[in-house]
Amino acid sequence: MAQFTFYHNPMSRGAIAHWALIEAGADFETVLVEWGAKPAGLTKANPMGKVPTLVHHHGDHDHVVTEAAAICHYLAHTHPDSGLLPNDHEAASYFRWLFFAAGPVEAAVTAKAMGWEVDEEKRAMAGFGTYDLVVDTLDEWLSDHDFVCGDRFTMADVYVGSQVDWGLMFGSIPERDGFKAYQQRIQARAAYKAARAADAKLHAEMTNG
Amino acid sequence: MAQFTFYHNPMSRGAIAHWALIEAGADFETVLVEWGAKPAGLTKANPMGKVPTLVHHHGDHDHVVTEAAAICHYLAHTHPDSGLLPNDHEAASYFRWLFFAAGPVEAAVTAKAMGWEVDEEKRAMAGFGTYDLVVDTLDEWLSDHDFVCGDRFTMADVYVGSQVDWGLMFGSIPERDGFKAYQQRIQARAAYKAARAADAKLHAEMTNG
Repeated sequence: MAQFTFYHNPMSRGAIAHWALIEAGADFETVLVEWGAKPAGLTKANPMGKVPTLVHHHGDHDHVVTEAAAICHYLAHTHPDSGLLPNDHEAASYFRWLFFAAGPVEAAVTAKAMGWEVDEEKRAMAGFGTYDLVVDTLDEWLSDHDFVCGDRFTMADVYVGSQVDWGLMFGSIPERDGFKAYQQRIQARAAYKAARAADAKLHAEMTNG
Repeated sequence: MAQFTFYHNPMSRGAIAHWALIEAGADFETVLVEWGAKPAGLTKANPMGKVPTLVHHHGDHDHVVTEAAAICHYLAHTHPDSGLLPNDHEAASYFRWLFFAAGPVEAAVTAKAMGWEVDEEKRAMAGFGTYDLVVDTLDEWLSDHDFVCGDRFTMADVYVGSQVDWGLMFGSIPERDGFKAYQQRIQARAAYKAARAADAKLHAEMTNG
């Protein structure tokens, strides 16, 4: 049995976890999930029934990890030799931007895609503030730094990079020079290319099967 | 100079970070932030101008951490002797629920508070799914486990516990037995009580000053 069971759909946020699994060099088995027919193992592990969901077979225990950002970090944590964890001077940026991308960026992009408006008097209730401020803040950081933690790729770039990569692809974040240059650095990763190729193959199998 | 500068407003998500600072036993100095007059140190550290923002004076470097959940974990990370980090069998739950609370819970509660509705055909775009599913999933876990990682309090409980505590106080999550019992366990922490007392004092100073 592989060390990890990966509940996946290549047309979902599962693509982020797939890249993370390959970056970490994890020993994993993929279970493809169709939207209409969720395997019992998935709904048992995660009542939300969402992909990606990762199950870590750890000695006598099965540990469940959900949320794409948590899965990325957990894989770095369980594979310290992959060099994807931050050092002590990188940890502040690593966790700051991981949570910034999972919280404010995700919320602001979703609100925009849904056509939701934040009333001025309710602004303090929306933790993310405004879409423009979120985008400007991320843009400024990625224009000043090659990667989330500075000059070195870490697991935080798998998650933040995926948000930028998908955001540019789907038009949910604006085409700015800072974002496009970061996307190029991200897409140059061998594990990124391997994950995208594997997902394209899985997608073809699912649509033809 | 204290090791950490803490930009704070007691009537904000800063209350979460304040509790985390006390739990960790951190050496920190508080800078109170009024909504209308943000100190230059804050806007330099965090273009979003949000509280909480934490600056770690680390040797020759100043590291900035934003996002309440990131601040909680960073304080556990920089204070390993406080015993608030997860062990290897707790790490999956620790990161899963930290990101679940910072992502889906925050997004679902905000959407409900704003009166935003997720159209059926756009459901897959909203990473959080639905408010009811998010609430049920969190309720199930906290009814089956005393704390996020099982039988032991960790830093994840500062963040998840704050979401439940505030959610019950403001009526943004439903009054269920599982949530109320967890809230009681959380409120029994000495550091929780110390933070709430300190915040009440700061709030009085700000309103009377």
